[in-house]
Amino acid sequence: MSLLVVGTTALDSIKTPRAENPRLLGGSASHAAVAASYFTTPHLVGAVGDDFPRKYINLYRRHGLDLAGLERLAGQTFHWSGEYELNMNRRRTLDTVLGVIENFSPTLPPAYTRLPYVLLANIAPDLQSHVLDQMRRPKFVVADTMDLWLNIARSALLKLLPRLDCLVLNDTEAAQLVEEENVIAALPRIHRLGPKYVIVKKGEHGSILSGPKGLFIAPAYPLVKVVDPTGAGDSFVGGLMGHLASQTGSPENNLRAAILQGSVIASYCCEGFGLKKTDRLKTADLSRRLRELTRMVKW
Amino acid sequence: MSLLVVGTTALDSIKTPRAENPRLLGGSASHAAVAASYFTTPHLVGAVGDDFPRKYINLYRRHGLDLAGLERLAGQTFHWSGEYELNMNRRRTLDTVLGVIENFSPTLPPAYTRLPYVLLANIAPDLQSHVLDQMRRPKFVVADTMDLWLNIARSALLKLLPRLDCLVLNDTEAAQLVEEENVIAALPRIHRLGPKYVIVKKGEHGSILSGPKGLFIAPAYPLVKVVDPTGAGDSFVGGLMGHLASQTGSPENNLRAAILQGSVIASYCCEGFGLKKTDRLKTADLSRRLRELTRMVKW
Repeated sequence: MSLLVVGTTALDSIKTPRAENPRLLGGSASHAAVAASYFTTPHLVGAVGDDFPRKYINLYRRHGLDLAGLERLAGQTFHWSGEYELNMNRRRTLDTVLGVIENFSPTLPPAYTRLPYVLLANIAPDLQSHVLDQMRRPKFVVADTMDLWLNIARSALLKLLPRLDCLVLNDTEAAQLVEEENVIAALPRIHRLGPKYVIVKKGEHGSILSGPKGLFIAPAYPLVKVVDPTGAGDSFVGGLMGHLASQTGSPENNLRAAILQGSVIASYCCEGFGLKKTDRLKTADLSRRLRELTRMVKW
Repeated sequence: MSLLVVGTTALDSIKTPRAENPRLLGGSASHAAVAASYFTTPHLVGAVGDDFPRKYINLYRRHGLDLAGLERLAGQTFHWSGEYELNMNRRRTLDTVLGVIENFSPTLPPAYTRLPYVLLANIAPDLQSHVLDQMRRPKFVVADTMDLWLNIARSALLKLLPRLDCLVLNDTEAAQLVEEENVIAALPRIHRLGPKYVIVKKGEHGSILSGPKGLFIAPAYPLVKVVDPTGAGDSFVGGLMGHLASQTGSPENNLRAAILQGSVIASYCCEGFGLKKTDRLKTADLSRRLRELTRMVKW
């Protein structure tokens, strides 16, 4: 079975205390779809400008992405520039150029509308809803979001939530969404907004899944060095949905394993700038870290 | 088998945004020994002043603590006052009166020197060493510490480390000890200072054990409400050592389970001021949360 991924397809210029990397391939859909490609065929929905480098299209192709839903529009590709602090835990946005995604309102290729797994990677919630409107009875719908949408598109996000099977967000966003500092106390309030499953990402501290069977506390794969965490959350949810889409049986039963797969691929994402590391993985790399992670939580 | 616990026996005055609690029973040894008492007989080493309330001695007795090593000295009991911020993640010390522990230099009751499990709960590293000097071939020695000793007694702490089986400290202390922000990268450096096992406490994010068999990533029991985290770290290490001391077989094989026991009892500690909650537990409370925690990490 396969997976629809909608989100941003972007160019990222990333500064860290140690390096500067202009115009890397980035965006939530790029990270999520490449991560998912290790498990299933991602069908990409996004928009790039006429400045989008050929080599990045080739990268998508190398990962077997279906690009029928990737529109090339006149104008600039969405461009984000940001800077990380020394410990990589805080970043600040230096500049954002929306470019062609500002007025992007995709009409899905007909074959896409029947895909069973839908990943609404981080992008404006109105656009996430617009894509979901076109889907016919998907099996499992997950959306990721970010603080920006909580600040400027809260009502659009609240309209989307009841239509999701699972919402993914980080701990500070969870707190902000329901105005509750304690993440564990925030979870039932988020469920009341709609999603049956909620996954709270906590970066190096792993993640927490909340659902009808209670909580699942998942570790992050421990890293000795974080080079660039940009896209780690997108890779996490991409790996997660890729794994779900590759499994038989109900998504509910595969969700815990899928989260660990997501953690593993997110760990690789952090070890290189942009998609550098995620681009060049082997299945053996993923299964090795999954085995290691499994050993690290057993007792 | 049983357990020696040395550390502070204190009076704590704790302010939070919601309440003020003067002169609660506190101190690292109080929290650790009461936590350990659910598993084994803790033999306490500490000093209290002539102002130490009778009711707190009764509390120790109720938990079956051996008080032969608890000295009552002329002067004030060690008194700490502190204040927590709204989210309970940061605290600041308002006042510290060392009182009778300033010149405390215990001579252990002879029976204590043969105890197999030794918990050097948080107190000056010179005093931890002085106690350890008197022990004959203990089976497993664990020390807890805090940033204060890293700042004012670093060389004493460095002298203690090679004599430990296991060092317990929190993530910021681990970073400070070896000047490495990344906790995972800090671990091998801490091992090189002596201890075969290192446990890094991360509060609500659980803990990480590092040892010859690699890493163990342990969850914290998720709490909807934290009333007062004072003593949670001491309860954690007390529960851990209490469990170890109650088991047959090598401590190495029981360490992962012991960490989860420590997490569970630390979670209760956080739910009441001082020892309020930890004082009144039933074995069934502990086994229930341990079962829940086990379910929360399975996949």
